[in-house]
Amino acid sequence: MSHNTFGHLFRVTTWGESHGPAIGCVVDGCPPRLRLSEADIQPWLDRRRPGQSRFTTQRQEPDRVRILSGTFEGLTTGTPIALMIDNVDQRSKDYGDIAERYRPGHADLTYDLKYGIRDWRGGGRSSARETAMRVAAGAVARVVLGPGVTIRGALVQLGPYTISRDRWDWDEVARNPFFCPDAETAAAWAEYLDGVRKAGSSVGAVIEVVAEGAPPGLGAPIYGKLDADIAAALMGINAVKGVEIGAGFGAASLHGEDNADEMRAGNDGIVRFGSNHAGGILGGISTGQPIVARFAVKPTSSILAPRLSVDREGHEIDVSTKGRHDPCVGIRAVPVGEAMIACVLADHLLRHRAQTPDAPTEARLPLDFRQV
Amino acid sequence: MSHNTFGHLFRVTTWGESHGPAIGCVVDGCPPRLRLSEADIQPWLDRRRPGQSRFTTQRQEPDRVRILSGTFEGLTTGTPIALMIDNVDQRSKDYGDIAERYRPGHADLTYDLKYGIRDWRGGGRSSARETAMRVAAGAVARVVLGPGVTIRGALVQLGPYTISRDRWDWDEVARNPFFCPDAETAAAWAEYLDGVRKAGSSVGAVIEVVAEGAPPGLGAPIYGKLDADIAAALMGINAVKGVEIGAGFGAASLHGEDNADEMRAGNDGIVRFGSNHAGGILGGISTGQPIVARFAVKPTSSILAPRLSVDREGHEIDVSTKGRHDPCVGIRAVPVGEAMIACVLADHLLRHRAQTPDAPTEARLPLDFRQV
Amino acid sequence: MSHNTFGHLFRVTTWGESHGPAIGCVVDGCPPRLRLSEADIQPWLDRRRPGQSRFTTQRQEPDRVRILSGTFEGLTTGTPIALMIDNVDQRSKDYGDIAERYRPGHADLTYDLKYGIRDWRGGGRSSARETAMRVAAGAVARVVLGPGVTIRGALVQLGPYTISRDRWDWDEVARNPFFCPDAETAAAWAEYLDGVRKAGSSVGAVIEVVAEGAPPGLGAPIYGKLDADIAAALMGINAVKGVEIGAGFGAASLHGEDNADEMRAGNDGIVRFGSNHAGGILGGISTGQPIVARFAVKPTSSILAPRLSVDREGHEIDVSTKGRHDPCVGIRAVPVGEAMIACVLADHLLRHRAQTPDAPTEARLPLDFRQV
Amino acid sequence: MSHNTFGHLFRVTTWGESHGPAIGCVVDGCPPRLRLSEADIQPWLDRRRPGQSRFTTQRQEPDRVRILSGTFEGLTTGTPIALMIDNVDQRSKDYGDIAERYRPGHADLTYDLKYGIRDWRGGGRSSARETAMRVAAGAVARVVLGPGVTIRGALVQLGPYTISRDRWDWDEVARNPFFCPDAETAAAWAEYLDGVRKAGSSVGAVIEVVAEGAPPGLGAPIYGKLDADIAAALMGINAVKGVEIGAGFGAASLHGEDNADEMRAGNDGIVRFGSNHAGGILGGISTGQPIVARFAVKPTSSILAPRLSVDREGHEIDVSTKGRHDPCVGIRAVPVGEAMIACVLADHLLRHRAQTPDAPTEARLPLDFRQV
Repeated sequence: MSHNTFGHLFRVTTWGESHGPAIGCVVDGCPPRLRLSEADIQPWLDRRRPGQSRFTTQRQEPDRVRILSGTFEGLTTGTPIALMIDNVDQRSKDYGDIAERYRPGHADLTYDLKYGIRDWRGGGRSSARETAMRVAAGAVARVVLGPGVTIRGALVQLGPYTISRDRWDWDEVARNPFFCPDAETAAAWAEYLDGVRKAGSSVGAVIEVVAEGAPPGLGAPIYGKLDADIAAALMGINAVKGVEIGAGFGAASLHGEDNADEMRAGNDGIVRFGSNHAGGILGGISTGQPIVARFAVKPTSSILAPRLSVDREGHEIDVSTKGRHDPCVGIRAVPVGEAMIACVLADHLLRHRAQTPDAPTEARLPLDFRQV
Repeated sequence: MSHNTFGHLFRVTTWGESHGPAIGCVVDGCPPRLRLSEADIQPWLDRRRPGQSRFTTQRQEPDRVRILSGTFEGLTTGTPIALMIDNVDQRSKDYGDIAERYRPGHADLTYDLKYGIRDWRGGGRSSARETAMRVAAGAVARVVLGPGVTIRGALVQLGPYTISRDRWDWDEVARNPFFCPDAETAAAWAEYLDGVRKAGSSVGAVIEVVAEGAPPGLGAPIYGKLDADIAAALMGINAVKGVEIGAGFGAASLHGEDNADEMRAGNDGIVRFGSNHAGGILGGISTGQPIVARFAVKPTSSILAPRLSVDREGHEIDVSTKGRHDPCVGIRAVPVGEAMIACVLADHLLRHRAQTPDAPTEARLPLDFRQV
Repeated sequence: MSHNTFGHLFRVTTWGESHGPAIGCVVDGCPPRLRLSEADIQPWLDRRRPGQSRFTTQRQEPDRVRILSGTFEGLTTGTPIALMIDNVDQRSKDYGDIAERYRPGHADLTYDLKYGIRDWRGGGRSSARETAMRVAAGAVARVVLGPGVTIRGALVQLGPYTISRDRWDWDEVARNPFFCPDAETAAAWAEYLDGVRKAGSSVGAVIEVVAEGAPPGLGAPIYGKLDADIAAALMGINAVKGVEIGAGFGAASLHGEDNADEMRAGNDGIVRFGSNHAGGILGGISTGQPIVARFAVKPTSSILAPRLSVDREGHEIDVSTKGRHDPCVGIRAVPVGEAMIACVLADHLLRHRAQTPDAPTEARLPLDFRQV
Repeated sequence: MSHNTFGHLFRVTTWGESHGPAIGCVVDGCPPRLRLSEADIQPWLDRRRPGQSRFTTQRQEPDRVRILSGTFEGLTTGTPIALMIDNVDQRSKDYGDIAERYRPGHADLTYDLKYGIRDWRGGGRSSARETAMRVAAGAVARVVLGPGVTIRGALVQLGPYTISRDRWDWDEVARNPFFCPDAETAAAWAEYLDGVRKAGSSVGAVIEVVAEGAPPGLGAPIYGKLDADIAAALMGINAVKGVEIGAGFGAASLHGEDNADEMRAGNDGIVRFGSNHAGGILGGISTGQPIVARFAVKPTSSILAPRLSVDREGHEIDVSTKGRHDPCVGIRAVPVGEAMIACVLADHLLRHRAQTPDAPTEARLPLDFRQV
């Protein structure tokens, strides 16, 4: 029940602070004899890296990952994989102002209330910098899942503006600075976010992650349900305030017959669904359909606009955060959300085959299990 | 990492199926010398009990709980508390029709795909009957939290119809069959749900749970965050498709300055907030404000209206579920949601004091921690 | 990290006290579609049952086990298996004397110091009665391991008297009241233990458990080593003070060349060893050889002979325990030790195939793994 | 249930191989505001460091530890503490001979059988080099336990030669290269081990660790017993084949009245014991007496003397290991054993105060607990 570890069989422990010498993680439980090198991890980190557009923080971090253990001659050995990234662009002085002050909406106050001490430089452990290691671990998880599983995320709402699902184009995601699947909306967002940024404000967002190709059977009821683990994984990302699966909150308004995903067996015997309100998960177990999750990110708490607050001594103050911050942390949350889903799926893949090694990898009928 | 256990220090393991001889749970890690008897648990079970109005299933289960271990002369001993409820009103024959058929939106298919076998009587392990034990465990958790912590839930949306927050009255919750805090809306819902029920349909809902009086400091970043654990706990309840904390998905549309909960120190030095968009949690740690969580429940999958589906052999069929079902499972999810929050808070209370035994129980400034 | 649960994927939670209404356990993570009924469990319980000879406690408990969940039509379903045994022969009045007194060598004092309360009737939770549920869980573990794995235990030392290994006969174990594999020694023990019993004294013992047929590869370095898990499992049995694997403490006196288990590949390519000082485990991983563990049980603490002690108020007293006690608790520890080894092996079997599903089930050379 | 993590609330994850770029660990759950710097850790590492006498491996590793996270201005922050040591004296070529060969008594074969791959350089992950991180983590654990708890180890047997307990002098432990508390025996061992070393052989040993000052109440029955956790922690050290607590295997030969540790309350009300056969633990819970554990280490497997074995292709070969090895790995196991006990105690201290925050820190009678 480590506070800084998640997963059970595919297990990730992260460490490090925003302005310490380095950040890192240990990925444990990875199967052996998988091809893995830094080149499998770096591209995913590059997608999350700050400073790539005017819409993210200008902190310059190359985020070069090194594998320090767990591989031999380019293959995983089954032993723990240690990954490390040096911090190179710390500017602690930017944060001197907030050493004794609590930014509204930030973890400053609660870390002090819990621990009685905090590394205030750049938010210390509460900084989103930690999410780089989630992305690194997610890259290893993708290797575990193999090429048959695709996990892709996109920004579907920025502030109050949502995309048009009719224009959804996965290829577009890589072409704009928002991971937006709708080119037209992306252009509108650019203009909108420029205004937000210049006003010293910030704005929230909604991200959607879709995992295709995962086998049926992942998830272990009652308290290891796949959707419950996804919910924890996404809610635990910095600034996330909501998570939904499939139809999500919209399902509350539906009638039973509209929410039902009707089934048919194809010529190949594989179960196909007429819709996917379930988001690929029924009873906490994957169906073989695409797994669809969304999460809401609140606006960045560190803003130039002054807000009323208190300091450590209880004095009433105004807080205005300078530093270098993302006007919308939701943007860089896209690769982080993908990584968390990848880690959850890898963990459940291992858990599933431990208990049910002969379970089918496709939803093919008739089901013909033998008694063991 | 048991599949059927949740919590870390306050830990609940449940067992049992809808139509087996009994259901039960083991609550482990409970502090010793707390006054506990069946009378502390039964009232919470009675709130969840089926058959109390025409809007819930007509299955008649007295749900009498027995304590089989872990107490001595009316006090907890620190050893595991075993709770058990006999099943008395099983009618398995109602379910013979679905032994080989997969109801859309139900766990029938996925249990078969994962395990190759399922107890189809009443949904077996996937039945919401299991949630009775969550409520029982939640009652123990309330004893651990003590009288200073109040956890209350309410139905805030039924189908497309939401309550008016201006009319919110906690006392009203106990007066209508919906746990609705708004009398006027409750009346409207009764009419609406009668129509749904008579049409053989079902509908979804949204529940809000508010925990007041919890101390600051609960929650352990990065992967034991209070909101992440709440998200898992609520998403793991049957039929839940979305979870949000505080402003939730609404936060995505806000600007940073509007989402910021400004702070002031009162004359007593206690931090007070001008708003609670955070839902009482910052950086995964409780602030001392009310903890506010909402979750969305999909419409009941077992409906009379026929839907297209397949059977175990792959034949295409129509499914229409008779049995005895709730037209809106969201209603009875209210006490379940409360119980899950209670369990999560009790677990985090124990975790918190393990690592930081001298942390303050109020958000009182100035903070004056000693070096240990 | 539940205090009353062990195992990770094959996971056992026990509850209940010596003189409560019942004792029970929940076995979680069991693979589905295994044939399992009470008849698979009862015979193992019968071996441990008290009152079968004059050398064990005269408490009469039929120890009838009931399966309350987790099976359907005689097969496991993959959901938690709840097992329960009613307590029928409680005589709490026997224990009134020790309600406020601390027996030397017993858990009376430490339970009070830790919890400030204890169910003193029959030792409450600290009673060896709890081990019945270990034996029940062990029976399920044997089903998981399958008929190819044999786990047998024997008493190899009683008080200062050890068996002769030259006369070791597994069939003899069932023929005497000591689980002794050496008929001649068993006869001598009977005479010796009668003397001990009549003197109101007690004596210790050493048990050896041998598991044959387990595949190589079980155990997960560095902190999930098979021998470390066996050590915890055996040391956690009531009254155990020592555990050793293979040559054990004797290995300390050996030279490297004498301790080395030399290897040869047979005509079938399977590695065979010239000896088994390792006890079937190298580097925390099973070799495929028989797994050999021994554990030492101290003499029963509850004895008629009076000892100096204190009561709850600090008064100096003499303690003499009447009740019904085993003159050598080591005897009935034999089936308990077997059960613990079975549970550890079942857990590791599941863990092993989660991470390395294509690992060989025999130690056959040449090793020809594919890159995944 | 990570394979490479131990502990529950005070939790240690290690990574790294003998001949990789570095080894490291993450210590999670450490309470905040404890003074901690490299200077608190380095001295313990220096005691374990190789190459300090002719009786340990001649590999030269300065073992300089760096703290990479989890402290701020010299105090712990409650966030994970990452520790790292660079490997500087790898000589992989020494091991080319064993890349395809299996040394008897070594983990070579089992790693290959389990993982199908192994980093054979210096034993890779199975190397005792990993134990440096245990010692580093143990140093942090000592800070958690505070100056009131003293944990000291000593070599009490080397090969067949045991110390004289009459001559036990803790100060002597630091004065000889064996951590031997008996100067006379240390001198004899030097002569004996020189002979063993020159013969290309190796020998086993027994280590005793004594923890004084730990409060009563540590340990959580039934499956989190202090002695069970100690057994796992010690058995999991490289080459360990046996563990015992207090009287250990010797208890098997005792009568109940001889094994009983009689109690008396002193003038201060504190319970005092006439003996310590229990080794400070009753019912899995600490009594407040010194905690005494012993463990047996087998002779080093890597020896010059040739032994029969097989290679990866199944060919029969002779194995003779050159490299740089300890003639008795038991010597350097002393600080490792101390560290493991420290980690277990720190973990249980946190676990204990989570469940029973008002438990007494001394065994003082009368016990006067309040009902909560």
